[in-house]
Amino acid sequence: MQKLYIIKIGGNVLDDETALATFLKDFANIQYPKILIHGGGKIATKIGHQLGIESNYINGRRITDEPTRDLVTMVYGGLINKQIVTQLQAHQCNAMGLTGADGNVIKATRRPVGEIDFGFVGDIVPKDVNTSFLYFLLKQNIIPVFAPLTYSPEHGILNTNADTIASVLAVALSKHFQIRVVYCFEKKGVLADIENETSVIKNIDSKAYAELLEQKVLFDGILPKLENAFDAIQNGVNEILIGSASDLSKNMGEETEGTLIKK
Amino acid sequence: MQKLYIIKIGGNVLDDETALATFLKDFANIQYPKILIHGGGKIATKIGHQLGIESNYINGRRITDEPTRDLVTMVYGGLINKQIVTQLQAHQCNAMGLTGADGNVIKATRRPVGEIDFGFVGDIVPKDVNTSFLYFLLKQNIIPVFAPLTYSPEHGILNTNADTIASVLAVALSKHFQIRVVYCFEKKGVLADIENETSVIKNIDSKAYAELLEQKVLFDGILPKLENAFDAIQNGVNEILIGSASDLSKNMGEETEGTLIKK
Repeated sequence: MQKLYIIKIGGNVLDDETALATFLKDFANIQYPKILIHGGGKIATKIGHQLGIESNYINGRRITDEPTRDLVTMVYGGLINKQIVTQLQAHQCNAMGLTGADGNVIKATRRPVGEIDFGFVGDIVPKDVNTSFLYFLLKQNIIPVFAPLTYSPEHGILNTNADTIASVLAVALSKHFQIRVVYCFEKKGVLADIENETSVIKNIDSKAYAELLEQKVLFDGILPKLENAFDAIQNGVNEILIGSASDLSKNMGEETEGTLIKK
Repeated sequence: MQKLYIIKIGGNVLDDETALATFLKDFANIQYPKILIHGGGKIATKIGHQLGIESNYINGRRITDEPTRDLVTMVYGGLINKQIVTQLQAHQCNAMGLTGADGNVIKATRRPVGEIDFGFVGDIVPKDVNTSFLYFLLKQNIIPVFAPLTYSPEHGILNTNADTIASVLAVALSKHFQIRVVYCFEKKGVLADIENETSVIKNIDSKAYAELLEQKVLFDGILPKLENAFDAIQNGVNEILIGSASDLSKNMGEETEGTLIKK
């Protein structure tokens, strides 16, 4: 099966013009089929502030009321997405910007109201990914660039976490490709010692993961990322790489700067 | 050759939620290959105002400085475009939102600085349209929905008039399709008497156009639309329909509510 790289970047890259420009040049240079997913960063909050739309969080999660939904549609789906597509085109990378609505590529369900109403937030599962459409774009050397937005016919555009989009796309496409998901974040990789920026654990398989959990070595913040990663691995994704955006070109092969997670 | 409808809507529809909803339902029901181009309407100016970005016009044309360029990218390319795509998907119309940057579908040149610097405005010609990519989408029953934005590798996203995008797409695609461009505006058609809303001139060919110009019957505001229309006709477009968005479903055939322009 052919390789596919699904690469996700977040605020630490998006909020830094120079880091983003370097990253996009490296991304454009990857000589394999690839998909980019971007998050949102601080700019939506900043623009929201100017528009009188305040960001509300409960348990660390953003409540997406209607004004907020329009805000993220504009900023994630318009401003950030098209700036990225345009920069990639300037590097001769034939990028196409997408939300889940475009080409019906990811249909979501609006998160049901429980104790908290999160508003216009979309939950997604692999079977709701239009894999044939993505396969068909990739075959034409068109590079999908996803904003963190999905949709439902009943509720319109929905806010969906970029990490989730990356892993759900990966599981869905694992039938067609040998996939490495690359999660770019602010560290060089999963650190054995949070105080030591260079203490990257280069490889983690299920056995090593169980041991690390037992030893309680890992920093709390990394646990959801690892749980998510092993879940995707169980569902057919070949490999997950967690590392720094600035190391992108060094995280494509067998030898990596970041942490490579396998079965 | 197969028929293709290229349909353009502007502020009078976009600024009216009910009119837009009705229009999109009618558009979704058209049983032919079709492309939608939308303009911007008042919402960009309104949001710009809240962000402290004032609209500057010279000779009736908007100056697109960098903040304005970001504003229209957000509002036209994000908010309006994705709202339209989502509404169409809800009607089972497999829409895909596009700017000129996506899939390199319309490459533009930034308008050179003459006496006036219009800023980030893009000029386009038919040869810069990626017709094979559009043909390939249409063959899959994917319906392109264009925001009024193009791009250049050197300058990024550029502001381009929606009417211009409609006619340039039409000329470019006239090799592959028998095209009717439908320009929706606030009147029922080209009026013989501007004071009489029902005085629609049903058909205008080159001969009739020359006569109408001589008689000085036509309202000034319609002249650029007609000049543009006949220019497209000279360049291979089959027909142009100028009429009301609310008459869309009645403007698809030989008999029309609006004004049908042919060679």
